[in-house]
Amino acid sequence: MAEIPDNVQGHNLHVDYVIRYSFGDVDRSQAIEQLEKLLQVLAQVGLQVEVRQGDESSLLVFVKASEKRLKRAVYRSRVRDWLYGIRNAEPTPSNSSEPQTEAERLRVINQMITLPKEEGGAAITPNHGEWKNVTAIFPLHDVDTNKKWIRAWSSKTFLSDDDLDQIRNKFGESVGFYFAFLQSYFRFLIFPAVFGFSCWFLLGGYSIIYTIVNCLWCIIFVEYWKRQEVDLSCRWQTKNVSAVRTKRREFKAEKEVRDEGTGEMRGIFPATKRMQRQLLQIPFALLAAIALGAIIATCFAIEIFISELYNGPLKTYLIFIPTILVSALVPTMSAILTSIAMKLNDHENHETSDAYDVALTQKVFVINFITSYMPIFLTAFVYVPFASRIVPYLDVFHLTVRPFVSKEHATTKRSHFQIDPARLRNQVVYFTVTAQIVGFAMETIVPFIKQHALRKYKKYNKERNGKMGRNGDKESPERPVVSFDDPAEEVQFLTRVRNEVELSEYDVTADLREMCIQFGYLALFSPTWPLVPLSFFVNNWVELRSDFFKICMEFRRPVPLRTDTIGPWLDSLGFLSWVGSITSAALLYMFSGNKQHGPNGEPTDIKGWALLLTIFFSEHLYLIVRYAVRAGMARIEPPNSRKERAERYLMRKRYLESTTNAEIDEDKDEDDITSMAQSTDISRMSLEEDARRASLHGADPATRFWMHQRGWTESAKIGAGIIHAQPTKDGVKKQQ
Amino acid sequence: MAEIPDNVQGHNLHVDYVIRYSFGDVDRSQAIEQLEKLLQVLAQVGLQVEVRQGDESSLLVFVKASEKRLKRAVYRSRVRDWLYGIRNAEPTPSNSSEPQTEAERLRVINQMITLPKEEGGAAITPNHGEWKNVTAIFPLHDVDTNKKWIRAWSSKTFLSDDDLDQIRNKFGESVGFYFAFLQSYFRFLIFPAVFGFSCWFLLGGYSIIYTIVNCLWCIIFVEYWKRQEVDLSCRWQTKNVSAVRTKRREFKAEKEVRDEGTGEMRGIFPATKRMQRQLLQIPFALLAAIALGAIIATCFAIEIFISELYNGPLKTYLIFIPTILVSALVPTMSAILTSIAMKLNDHENHETSDAYDVALTQKVFVINFITSYMPIFLTAFVYVPFASRIVPYLDVFHLTVRPFVSKEHATTKRSHFQIDPARLRNQVVYFTVTAQIVGFAMETIVPFIKQHALRKYKKYNKERNGKMGRNGDKESPERPVVSFDDPAEEVQFLTRVRNEVELSEYDVTADLREMCIQFGYLALFSPTWPLVPLSFFVNNWVELRSDFFKICMEFRRPVPLRTDTIGPWLDSLGFLSWVGSITSAALLYMFSGNKQHGPNGEPTDIKGWALLLTIFFSEHLYLIVRYAVRAGMARIEPPNSRKERAERYLMRKRYLESTTNAEIDEDKDEDDITSMAQSTDISRMSLEEDARRASLHGADPATRFWMHQRGWTESAKIGAGIIHAQPTKDGVKKQQ
Repeated sequence: MAEIPDNVQGHNLHVDYVIRYSFGDVDRSQAIEQLEKLLQVLAQVGLQVEVRQGDESSLLVFVKASEKRLKRAVYRSRVRDWLYGIRNAEPTPSNSSEPQTEAERLRVINQMITLPKEEGGAAITPNHGEWKNVTAIFPLHDVDTNKKWIRAWSSKTFLSDDDLDQIRNKFGESVGFYFAFLQSYFRFLIFPAVFGFSCWFLLGGYSIIYTIVNCLWCIIFVEYWKRQEVDLSCRWQTKNVSAVRTKRREFKAEKEVRDEGTGEMRGIFPATKRMQRQLLQIPFALLAAIALGAIIATCFAIEIFISELYNGPLKTYLIFIPTILVSALVPTMSAILTSIAMKLNDHENHETSDAYDVALTQKVFVINFITSYMPIFLTAFVYVPFASRIVPYLDVFHLTVRPFVSKEHATTKRSHFQIDPARLRNQVVYFTVTAQIVGFAMETIVPFIKQHALRKYKKYNKERNGKMGRNGDKESPERPVVSFDDPAEEVQFLTRVRNEVELSEYDVTADLREMCIQFGYLALFSPTWPLVPLSFFVNNWVELRSDFFKICMEFRRPVPLRTDTIGPWLDSLGFLSWVGSITSAALLYMFSGNKQHGPNGEPTDIKGWALLLTIFFSEHLYLIVRYAVRAGMARIEPPNSRKERAERYLMRKRYLESTTNAEIDEDKDEDDITSMAQSTDISRMSLEEDARRASLHGADPATRFWMHQRGWTESAKIGAGIIHAQPTKDGVKKQQ
Repeated sequence: MAEIPDNVQGHNLHVDYVIRYSFGDVDRSQAIEQLEKLLQVLAQVGLQVEVRQGDESSLLVFVKASEKRLKRAVYRSRVRDWLYGIRNAEPTPSNSSEPQTEAERLRVINQMITLPKEEGGAAITPNHGEWKNVTAIFPLHDVDTNKKWIRAWSSKTFLSDDDLDQIRNKFGESVGFYFAFLQSYFRFLIFPAVFGFSCWFLLGGYSIIYTIVNCLWCIIFVEYWKRQEVDLSCRWQTKNVSAVRTKRREFKAEKEVRDEGTGEMRGIFPATKRMQRQLLQIPFALLAAIALGAIIATCFAIEIFISELYNGPLKTYLIFIPTILVSALVPTMSAILTSIAMKLNDHENHETSDAYDVALTQKVFVINFITSYMPIFLTAFVYVPFASRIVPYLDVFHLTVRPFVSKEHATTKRSHFQIDPARLRNQVVYFTVTAQIVGFAMETIVPFIKQHALRKYKKYNKERNGKMGRNGDKESPERPVVSFDDPAEEVQFLTRVRNEVELSEYDVTADLREMCIQFGYLALFSPTWPLVPLSFFVNNWVELRSDFFKICMEFRRPVPLRTDTIGPWLDSLGFLSWVGSITSAALLYMFSGNKQHGPNGEPTDIKGWALLLTIFFSEHLYLIVRYAVRAGMARIEPPNSRKERAERYLMRKRYLESTTNAEIDEDKDEDDITSMAQSTDISRMSLEEDARRASLHGADPATRFWMHQRGWTESAKIGAGIIHAQPTKDGVKKQQ
């Protein structure tokens, strides 16, 4: 049980949560009335409040929980966990329920703020409905620990299980699962990194050995992580946590039903109706494929034209046209499609935010898949085999260079078309090295710089306005208009808080998506360039630390969220692994060995049936191996699962002992049967027998049947008699 | 709660179990000693015994449980279920634990006989170790109810859920699951039967519509049954019953470990070692494939030779050579392979008999798959496309007819080879109609006739020997040697018991295998002849009733066994469904439409790549649809599952209420925070504030932070002040 160190909280002045209350867009009296209501409701739930100014249009409400009410809320939350089977240890009575970890404390206080009144909360719903002036609710960063961890991990290669537990204790299970996944992935990448390096060094690209080992590795990693998830969810006590998901506010129930088990009324929306709405995903996927595919294919064609066909002036500058087009059009189209996806998702009317997120992830994954992998697909499976047939049609793209060069230059300068054999490899190198570095910069460095620049600008602006105000303002000569009335000792603290308020909210889905797409490159295209895993290995070491840095510096501290899986991304990993078995086989067949080359440098002896046969075998071999690995992994129970099962067993045992005093192993007391084991003289017994039989003449056949032999000794004697009466083998032989 | 009717038990003279004790092959004194031990041990456990003669070399020990000891054993069994999470209702105290159903009663008594001493049983292990003279332990058939049900069901089309519940109450869940599966399968067959008939009538064979609907039906049926299994296991309270499996006696543990949860010592065998041993399955499968495949292919080739090439004398008789060869060799090879499979299975050293059965089923399924489907595979995918290339090599088979005809006849009489286009269809018709009827006869009618004939022969024999004995025997002039010394009123009962003793033990696996193989024909080959489901529909109506008849008449009453699934057969169904998607596509491509025919009648325009492409699309479409159906089914929770989940919730609620008196929703008592809600005059408060601040000068910053605003009303006022102090929009505009 981790204790919450005093100085940590102390550094944050014991503030648990900060609530930002904006009053900029409503009139004064309404804002004040709403504020009073907010503070009253918070106080009723058991939270102490302090109000400070946020900026020109918002207040900061600092919230701290009273220990007694907090214990009661912790108890309530644990009882709920217990009832739904998430916890196996009965919750201790309310007055001794301390929060176990910082994350639990913050989560329970968040529940005190946001749960509906009937569940004991204050029912404050940020940005929604009655409380739309409450624009943010977040805890403050524990700056010291953050710094300490960043420094410590920068010198380590691997995080230990304890480090992961500490992340979970501070940030909650959702973030903890992400880092645990990242760490597992990193650890697993050692082997393909080393193996890939040796293959690249000794065999070059497109080696069969490397491809087989790569596919096997993908299978084992995905199955291992599935098992590890279960283990972690038992260790962090979040197994089956989806049972206690709170409802989405936007959920519109169709009708009310009484839940059989709990006896409460619940609103439900028929699952069949939702499934019908979900069928809309199919046209959506097709639309996404066509729209994005068209853009990417067109830009690809333009690029081929300019780089390999066109040979006129300004070539080195015109090369950038397709790059600019792609960078402009693809994100735009992705954003449009993503918003369509969100509208579809809202239409599906999911009950819990969990289900909502899963469904949204599945839709957005289609978009990600196309934007990330289609360029390489086009190069590998369209450009190389079919380029010579397509190239004559590419002449139409001279229109794209027309704005820059004269007509004759555009149409006449043509070089002899030759397939660039290294194009595919260069593209893979780009996506797996260059794009990762650029992504890292965009994700971590640029926002950091932006923030600091923004803060400096604001400060500069404030000083400038402050000077003006002092000179030109007549309303309140004592105080500058836009400076804050902070007590001296709180200035530093409040400045930090105001900075944190400006940050955005962290969403772990974006990081998981990034890792998933990265895994896809490894599964799908790494036979082309076996150094891919090595590049990812290095990248992920940086990624883990930079993601943590990002959470600490560029986002508000996330509200701890419990989860027992990385969710739909696990399915995506499995899917990418499967597609990888197909594409690896195809790549190997088409590009390995010495293929005959045609006049334009294209491989000529690609046979359709041989390609399909290769894919057929590769895919089914993948499925068989995956089945075997799964069966094998299922046999080995993870240690924490076993512990959890044992706890459930012991809990039931305790219950049993508490309700009944009867022992399971009772003494064998004497009863009628054994007491009749005493044997007496046969002759006397046989007389008594006859007497018995006569007396029972009226009883039913069953009773009579069972009265023939009283006690087992008598049965034994009768049996011995029967045995003796049988002819022995010698006796039978004599007769014959 | 089904009551066990009095007359039922009464008809069996209240006998619960019959134990057959053989003494034929040991010497007399040993046999008698063992018998005494047996009876003593049974009596100690709480069973009343009666001994009667069985036949010349065996005794029958009739066993009845004392009610008090039975209740204790029922209680013990329910406690064990409760501890392992199978039951959700706590077991009522021992003195009120009546067995709920006849099956439970019989099961618990069986446990009293067979469980080890430390678990409260008599540790009698039939045919094994110390008790190898105990050759059978079985309950007696309830003849009246059996007759009643056979009569009732012969007039019904469908069995209701109540009927299935009754089967389960009498015969246990294992048999109940089989009949429930058969009933589900039968119900589901209505649709393809009707649809197939209309397709056959309107479109003939090889229609795309029928194939697509057929594959879809297979997917939906398998997924539906998976869900139905879960529902049944909740309804029959056997969910997770595999947790209480008793150990196999043959299990050899490698080392002893202390189980963490229960604290008991358990012998374990490392799972990794077992997995290594299981790798031997791969060479076994290959061996089976080659051995059986060679036999079937050879006989097939011989048949082609004789029926389509050879044209000499005795042709009509020689046609039967391959049939004879197949009927002789295939079962022999299957038996050899099955015994190899059993040895392998023993070598794998499974812990529970459940795991043992599953593993054995998987091995034997390979054998079944090859023997059932390979003939049709050969016809469809070897004979039709490639016959003209193979036929010249078939001349070697003239050797098979040589014993019967002269050399010239064998080698010279040759007809012009023409592919028989109806061969495939005829073969499918044979397997799905003729073979089913023959199988029914072999399975049900022949044993029945055999039994009666055997009994009549024995009776005749006995009478003949009896006459001789009375004439020639001098040892015991009063009693004939081989007639039985039965009390007059028990003669009929004991004759029936002796007849039942002669029967063999029922194994539900054989029937499940039959149904599974039948499903395979439907999934794999029904596009050839769309009347297949109709034939199976009729067959299964008969099958269900004949299987029940078979259990009642040709097998001993099975010891009730609990289970929550039909086991590995479910995986087999899914596998056959998958393979069906491939073969259906291939059959459709190769045989549908008007194909060009070559000189020998073979289709000539089968292209390799087109075939592979068809298979590729068909298979992946199958997988996508299966994924969608699974996702859809997972959303709809079966009614009994929901009930079971609610029970678990209520159980925990009861426990909570029993251990703590604290209510979950406590009254909000007044505490410090709300008591400070009273607001007083600001001016007075502000004076007091200053005083407070001064006094706290020594306290830490956190405390000082929280003392600024005492109570939420003060915070509200401060907040209002801040709001007012901000420049309004008008104010700002004025400044500008």
